Amino acid sequence: MSQSSLIEKLNWRYATKKMDPSKPVPQEKVDQIVEAIRMAPTSSGVQPFEVFVITNADVRAKIRPVAWDQAQITDCSHLLVFAAWDNYTADRIDSVTKQLTDERGELPLMQDYYAKLKSNYLPREAEVNYQHAARQAYIAFGFALAAAAELEVDSTPMEGFDPAQVDEILGLRERGLRSVLLLPLGTRQADADWLLPMKKVRKSKDALVTEIA
Amino acid sequence: MSQSSLIEKLNWRYATKKMDPSKPVPQEKVDQIVEAIRMAPTSSGVQPFEVFVITNADVRAKIRPVAWDQAQITDCSHLLVFAAWDNYTADRIDSVTKQLTDERGELPLMQDYYAKLKSNYLPREAEVNYQHAARQAYIAFGFALAAAAELEVDSTPMEGFDPAQVDEILGLRERGLRSVLLLPLGTRQADADWLLPMKKVRKSKDALVTEIA
Repeated sequence: MSQSSLIEKLNWRYATKKMDPSKPVPQEKVDQIVEAIRMAPTSSGVQPFEVFVITNADVRAKIRPVAWDQAQITDCSHLLVFAAWDNYTADRIDSVTKQLTDERGELPLMQDYYAKLKSNYLPREAEVNYQHAARQAYIAFGFALAAAAELEVDSTPMEGFDPAQVDEILGLRERGLRSVLLLPLGTRQADADWLLPMKKVRKSKDALVTEIA
Repeated sequence: MSQSSLIEKLNWRYATKKMDPSKPVPQEKVDQIVEAIRMAPTSSGVQPFEVFVITNADVRAKIRPVAWDQAQITDCSHLLVFAAWDNYTADRIDSVTKQLTDERGELPLMQDYYAKLKSNYLPREAEVNYQHAARQAYIAFGFALAAAAELEVDSTPMEGFDPAQVDEILGLRERGLRSVLLLPLGTRQADADWLLPMKKVRKSKDALVTEIA
C-alpha cells in the first residue's frame, strides 16, 4: 500500500450513522477484520478480552434499546462486542504460558517473566485488572477500525451503551467478562446519513503533536 | 490493498526488541504515522490526548532508566509519547465545539450534544475522566501500530514505564496531561533481536471469538 492510500482510507472512514440493512458485509471481509483483532498486540501478549460477532437479529434487537436506541445495531450485518476479562487470574495467565511453551518450547526466562506478572497482577483489585484488560481491548478496537477502513467496510465505534445490560443479554459476567465496546459493521446508506456530507473535523497537527528535537 | 497483504503486514510487525540506531525512520513515514493518530476516532470527537514525538537524544536518555532501561528508547529514531488529558474541563470541551462550529457552521443539535456532554463529564472525578481519556489514546495507539506496520516501520508498544517520572521529565502535569503509552519507532536489528526468530503466538480464533448467529 502506498503512503497516500493508507491516509485516504482513514479519511474515507467515518462513524456511520445510517447503515443499509439490505447490504450485508461479505463474510470474508468480516473474517479479515476479526483476524486483525486477533493479531493486535496486548500487554505481555495476554489478549485479555473476547470478541462476540453477532449476526442474530433477535440478540441485536435486544441490545439496541440499551444502547441509546442506535439504529446501526440492527441495521448493520455484524455487531462486534468487545468484552474484557473482569480480572486476571492464575488460570488465565497460566493458559498464556502454556500456549507459549507449546508453540515456542521451554524458555526459562519466559517462565520467570510470567511468574513475575502473576505476582504483580494477582494481588491487585479486580477493578484495576479489569481496567487494564479493557485498555488492551481498545488497541484491538483500533486495529478493527483501521482494518475495516482498509477493506472499505463501514463501522461505527460505540461506547454509548449500558454495559451491565449488555453483559446480562450476552451472559458475560458468568464467563468472567465485561462488555467495553460495540462495533457495528455494515454499509453506509449514503442518501440518508446526516454525517456523511459533513466535513471531517480533527485537531490540527500543531494542536495535537509536540516535537522535541 | 488486497485482503491478504493487510494481514501479512500485521504478521510482519512484532514488538521489536533490538533496534539499529544507525537506521532512522524516514521523516515522511513518521509523518504518516502521526497523521493516522490524528485521524483516529475518539469518543464524541474530543481527541482528549496529545502526542510527543521525541528525537532529542538527551530526553530519550532520561526516559530510558524510568522505563525498565528498555534499549529501544534510545535505539529508536523517534520516540512517541501518548499523554491523555488529566481531566475534562469546560474550556477543553468548548474548544472542540468551537472548532466544529468554525468548520461545519452553526448546528443547534451539536451545541445541545456538547452541552449534555459537559453536564455528564464535568461533575465526575478527575480520575474517572482521565481513565476515559486514556482509553481514547489507546485507539489512536492502535492506529499508530497498524500504520507503522503498513509502512514497514518497526515499533515497540510499551506500557512498562513510570508515568509519574515521564510526566516530570516532559513537564506534562503542568500542561494537564498524564503519560499513558510509549511507542519507539525504529528499524529492527535482525541479527541481534531474540524475539524476531520466534513464532508469533496468538490465541486461536476459537479461543478469542464467539459467533452468535
